[in-house]
Amino acid sequence: MFIDNKIPNSLSSQLRFLIETERLKGVLRKTLPIGLARRENSSEHSWSLALMAVVFAEYANEEIDLLKVLLMVLLHDLVEIDAGDMLFYKRRSSSKTQQSEHMAAQRIFGILPAAQGNMFELIWQEFEVNATPEAHFAHAIDRLLPILQNLNNEGGSWKKYMISVEQVIENNNLIARGSELLWEFAKRMIHKGEKQGCFSSIEHPKG
Amino acid sequence: MFIDNKIPNSLSSQLRFLIETERLKGVLRKTLPIGLARRENSSEHSWSLALMAVVFAEYANEEIDLLKVLLMVLLHDLVEIDAGDMLFYKRRSSSKTQQSEHMAAQRIFGILPAAQGNMFELIWQEFEVNATPEAHFAHAIDRLLPILQNLNNEGGSWKKYMISVEQVIENNNLIARGSELLWEFAKRMIHKGEKQGCFSSIEHPKG
Repeated sequence: MFIDNKIPNSLSSQLRFLIETERLKGVLRKTLPIGLARRENSSEHSWSLALMAVVFAEYANEEIDLLKVLLMVLLHDLVEIDAGDMLFYKRRSSSKTQQSEHMAAQRIFGILPAAQGNMFELIWQEFEVNATPEAHFAHAIDRLLPILQNLNNEGGSWKKYMISVEQVIENNNLIARGSELLWEFAKRMIHKGEKQGCFSSIEHPKG
Repeated sequence: MFIDNKIPNSLSSQLRFLIETERLKGVLRKTLPIGLARRENSSEHSWSLALMAVVFAEYANEEIDLLKVLLMVLLHDLVEIDAGDMLFYKRRSSSKTQQSEHMAAQRIFGILPAAQGNMFELIWQEFEVNATPEAHFAHAIDRLLPILQNLNNEGGSWKKYMISVEQVIENNNLIARGSELLWEFAKRMIHKGEKQGCFSSIEHPKG
């Protein structure tokens, strides 16, 4: 930690927060960046989501505040610093994951000055609860990116973890809540990917 | 490329653009993420800038449109996909670099539908020209991040490339145009870093 004890408390807290966020660069996801033979980390993923949100904003079902969507996608994975990344297809049932992510949010956003930390935590919660136009769209983008990556990496993590087409369709249909158009497109691409060998022929057991 | 010939042209162009941007994850910078023994890539860097811009927005000298600042920092390094990353302290004199970055901007933003591509290119140019409150602040953040990283990595790329304290002060004083407060803080920290061994004792020859 490289902070002078003479600098104002608020700036000092913000610096400690930013230094802490560097750790997201060490949290590895299951997906690979397109064309690279390594797993991507959650900070790269977050950058791609932000870019994708800007590029695809016009396809949101509802009117969205793009700045809020960007804050959501920039912040949403910070909890993984404590809680780790979880393969999405194994994630749904785990209330333990949710609990550890909530504790992580409190700790990490709690480093910031109270007003800013509370604001960030509210944005993160809004993403998690997924009941606003911005959250719907942020989730759509968050799901769409790994689909695009796997399709362009010969199946990528789908093949490696033996995820079936049915699982991909079932687990990503909430893309439609954020953007009907992008979900229609994604489904067509997933089925095309199936024909072109993006899925393992041995299905993962259900449940 | 995994694009169906039945999807609308605009969406198809946007997908090709997003696939192309994945290559930024393979462009390595000279700086290391804090605490990690590897160079960071420009997509991770861009994510950190976006986060830092949000956290430090209150310290901008002038009133800023935060959404525009975020667009700038998310997009500003995409030209490195073609032009590569250049050690900042070697960069100033090179008009060749500027030329290749302009060509890169035309190629990369030119993948998008015209209206969106032009908008992105204008934002990138506004950053480069550095004559608006948003560009001033985006540059301040772009310079501040590696300072924070090097200070917290025992000198990091300063030590490795034998950059002197004077060079760091001289080459980063444009932080003050974006935020007087952050530049005052940064100078104090750089001098503290000097006392704590963040700089090589052998100075790099001037010029």
